[in-house]
Amino acid sequence: MLEERIRMPALRQRVVSAEEAAALIQDGMTLGISGFTRAGDAKVVPQALAERVRRTGERLRIQLWTGASVAEEVDRTLCEAGVVVRRLPFQSDPVLRAAINRGEVMYVDQHLSQTVEMVREGQLGPLDVAILEAVAITEDGGIVPSTSVGNSPTFAHMAKRIIVELNTRQPLLLEGMHDIYEPGPRPHRDPIPLTRVDGRIGQPAIAVPPGKIAAIVVTHRADHFAPLAAPDAETEQMAGHLLEFFDHEVRRGRLPESLRPLQSGVGSVANAVLHGMLDGRFHNLEMYSEVLQDAVFDLLDAGKMRFASGCAITVSPARAQEIMSRLVAYRDRIILRPQEISNHPGIIRRFGVIAINTAIEVDIYGNVNSTHVLGTHMMNGIGGSGDFARNAYLSVFVTKSTAKDGRISCIVPMVAHVDHTEHDVQVVVTEQGLADLRGLAPRERAPLIIERCAHPAYRELLREYWRDAQRFGGQTPHDLAKALSWHVRARDTGSMLPDDSPRPAAADAARRAAAARAGMVSGRR
Amino acid sequence: MLEERIRMPALRQRVVSAEEAAALIQDGMTLGISGFTRAGDAKVVPQALAERVRRTGERLRIQLWTGASVAEEVDRTLCEAGVVVRRLPFQSDPVLRAAINRGEVMYVDQHLSQTVEMVREGQLGPLDVAILEAVAITEDGGIVPSTSVGNSPTFAHMAKRIIVELNTRQPLLLEGMHDIYEPGPRPHRDPIPLTRVDGRIGQPAIAVPPGKIAAIVVTHRADHFAPLAAPDAETEQMAGHLLEFFDHEVRRGRLPESLRPLQSGVGSVANAVLHGMLDGRFHNLEMYSEVLQDAVFDLLDAGKMRFASGCAITVSPARAQEIMSRLVAYRDRIILRPQEISNHPGIIRRFGVIAINTAIEVDIYGNVNSTHVLGTHMMNGIGGSGDFARNAYLSVFVTKSTAKDGRISCIVPMVAHVDHTEHDVQVVVTEQGLADLRGLAPRERAPLIIERCAHPAYRELLREYWRDAQRFGGQTPHDLAKALSWHVRARDTGSMLPDDSPRPAAADAARRAAAARAGMVSGRR
Repeated sequence: MLEERIRMPALRQRVVSAEEAAALIQDGMTLGISGFTRAGDAKVVPQALAERVRRTGERLRIQLWTGASVAEEVDRTLCEAGVVVRRLPFQSDPVLRAAINRGEVMYVDQHLSQTVEMVREGQLGPLDVAILEAVAITEDGGIVPSTSVGNSPTFAHMAKRIIVELNTRQPLLLEGMHDIYEPGPRPHRDPIPLTRVDGRIGQPAIAVPPGKIAAIVVTHRADHFAPLAAPDAETEQMAGHLLEFFDHEVRRGRLPESLRPLQSGVGSVANAVLHGMLDGRFHNLEMYSEVLQDAVFDLLDAGKMRFASGCAITVSPARAQEIMSRLVAYRDRIILRPQEISNHPGIIRRFGVIAINTAIEVDIYGNVNSTHVLGTHMMNGIGGSGDFARNAYLSVFVTKSTAKDGRISCIVPMVAHVDHTEHDVQVVVTEQGLADLRGLAPRERAPLIIERCAHPAYRELLREYWRDAQRFGGQTPHDLAKALSWHVRARDTGSMLPDDSPRPAAADAARRAAAARAGMVSGRR
Repeated sequence: MLEERIRMPALRQRVVSAEEAAALIQDGMTLGISGFTRAGDAKVVPQALAERVRRTGERLRIQLWTGASVAEEVDRTLCEAGVVVRRLPFQSDPVLRAAINRGEVMYVDQHLSQTVEMVREGQLGPLDVAILEAVAITEDGGIVPSTSVGNSPTFAHMAKRIIVELNTRQPLLLEGMHDIYEPGPRPHRDPIPLTRVDGRIGQPAIAVPPGKIAAIVVTHRADHFAPLAAPDAETEQMAGHLLEFFDHEVRRGRLPESLRPLQSGVGSVANAVLHGMLDGRFHNLEMYSEVLQDAVFDLLDAGKMRFASGCAITVSPARAQEIMSRLVAYRDRIILRPQEISNHPGIIRRFGVIAINTAIEVDIYGNVNSTHVLGTHMMNGIGGSGDFARNAYLSVFVTKSTAKDGRISCIVPMVAHVDHTEHDVQVVVTEQGLADLRGLAPRERAPLIIERCAHPAYRELLREYWRDAQRFGGQTPHDLAKALSWHVRARDTGSMLPDDSPRPAAADAARRAAAARAGMVSGRR
């Protein structure tokens, strides 16, 4: 078994326990670990490290770099042990999130394509230890990643030492599904030669000098994926609006029936919207995305999608075992890439990707907040949404029109934090409808977003704001004294609704859905 | 003379008057004209069109697309004639700006690299007529641009008809300085093969089917450049801080003495900062920028810069004639490219450009407003700043710490409009000092920006805001009820200073300058 997974005999002597490997990590170090949206993260060494600190009471403070979010075994455990002082570039763990929002952990929220550029140039300081999950180590010491690639190639390249978590639970069939490519040094870097979603430009494993592999820990743990909420009536409406829009674009000759390579953000809403593609007229679809969630496998199974390129396979716990057991069916139809390639601005523009990302809130001019609840508190992070939205052929943002049982409007006068500016937002979709903002000035965007996307309970309030704001003039009229008043009200009362405003009752959901279906999808040319 | 400039004999019959050419333009059309930062814009046909409308009183409404800003001959004249209903992607004319801010002209403010992608895909509707300034038409009908390339190749490619303004005032020596390259159709586009700042990947002229050239108008008008404010004590201090920072990076081994290809935004401040490079230890510099202003020519003359790639030559009126008369000295050291190449996200990242752009205001977390005065009124537009800042090796934003004689602080609690998010802003420079934000969380950024960059007259007010904001917690603490209060005060009173706060007197300028020089440049690792 070990021979099959560690094919370079000399390296078999480096197999140690998780505790022995963790002993390589000292106070003040920076760790770079594998993992992207909870797929393929290092699992047992970070836990052994936290356990050691709890046992010995020693002072240990580390900077923790990852690909993207990792499971609680890492983020929660290390955070609870008080070990993490700085964290980048993305997270989604509730315990870590709370520590970040208390100001205890310095969280550097980055575009996912950018971290390794800064790491390679030494702009973030040295990387001491990389901890990388692998399904195998090749004859010449190459590290074969598991369910994600993330930032692992650069972490391996830049770290002083590498610890491999060889996970025998991850299917060996994953070998060959990765395409490891790292761009050369700047300023005389060659163009990245990828010209097709299914193109291969690199190697199946991460090449490292075998001497750098300081320890190998054998594990047998499944990825700890988060549940995905099932599609509901509102996500189905959102998918319906988007499919109708794509249909319109196909009829106008602007898109083929295979559309363009699709990207879909992480999470339930984006997954549900993509899931809606099972019903459309579209076929021969391609994915050029970061995370491949359940809906991608459904589309592949249904023969709707021909190929999916991503950085990670992150499926719901309910589906994981079944999908992994049928990996052979996907082997030739999926490629996993380093996140700087899956999210590369130049390649996203080269392919002309259709990007579908989720917003926390959108303002009447189309600026998007995708990270900060009420402008101050971090939810997860910007992730790859900026990489895709800025460079896409078409940048779509989806959100339900309200949150917290209608007490929060996701369409607001002014977003309280901006992650995506109006320049990078072309289509906004809620269960109410779709606003096509292409080629429109802010003064044209506002009425369209209010009428198409806002919840009826907030629509008149938004109209009123928009009417009053115009008194102040400008390209982007705002009454700055009131622009954030909805957020202040929500902060202080838990609701954006003024006292005298009717609350959206669950009872009117059917009426709203009917109205939404009755053709509020517009704003087209 | 005409033979030298119009080398395809059949096309000489297409020479007409400006009025005859303007007759091709009808109500409801979309015009795409040459011009980028007032260089190489179409000059006489737009004026003849405005004149016709004034004379006949006819109804004529057009959409106007350009490369970037054009001179008043176009924007002001057409705006005053009431002809322009929609304008993109950038402008800087006071008359047009006022019309935009009154909501009379719909202004679509775009990243400069993106317009042609949307035009080629038909996302902005059809292009009826392109009006392109040229220095010559080649033997096979190719259009040789003048002092800018802008969006002209795609406008020529997509327009139904082309009007050429053959400008005999523009030196024929410009021929050969352009590198015309247009990427192929998506999604199977080849990589753009540019791997060096001085690389050539295209042709010296814009190839068009000669039959598409409907009219040629011979002109003899100089580009109408805007004056550049001379470097002053404060811009010299800003340059000093930045040079000291670069020096530090070189000593740390993170940058070579030739630095990285430089980009510098349009305008006096960016030009002045670049001008400061004449004094540094840096040499063999390269420019990969959009606009080449006076300082670039000074650096080339001084032998400090080896090569400059741009989209336009935009020099001050005082220098224009002299520089144009010595064009032979620059011919082999300057290349002009289409703006989608000069501003291409993938190429900016490939080269690892150092981007230096100007801000209107910066907030304590490093978010930048570069377009909207007091959050509502458009100044010019985002231009190429987003193309560069997002993809740069290092993204620097410069601004004086105050405006309006100290009544406006350019460091504010929260910017009232966001063009560049904290993710895209790594270094902030004012005359007070420099804040290096790389790898820092928002809670670390705030004190650094306040202490290093804010004007002393606002520093205590900012400290107070920052102290109070932390009570609300979060990754990015804000007191949303007060976050925009400085802007509201300025809107209502003309000043951000509370009544009881001391005004920064001109008298303390010397003290401030001395303090700034005495080493407030920090925030380094």
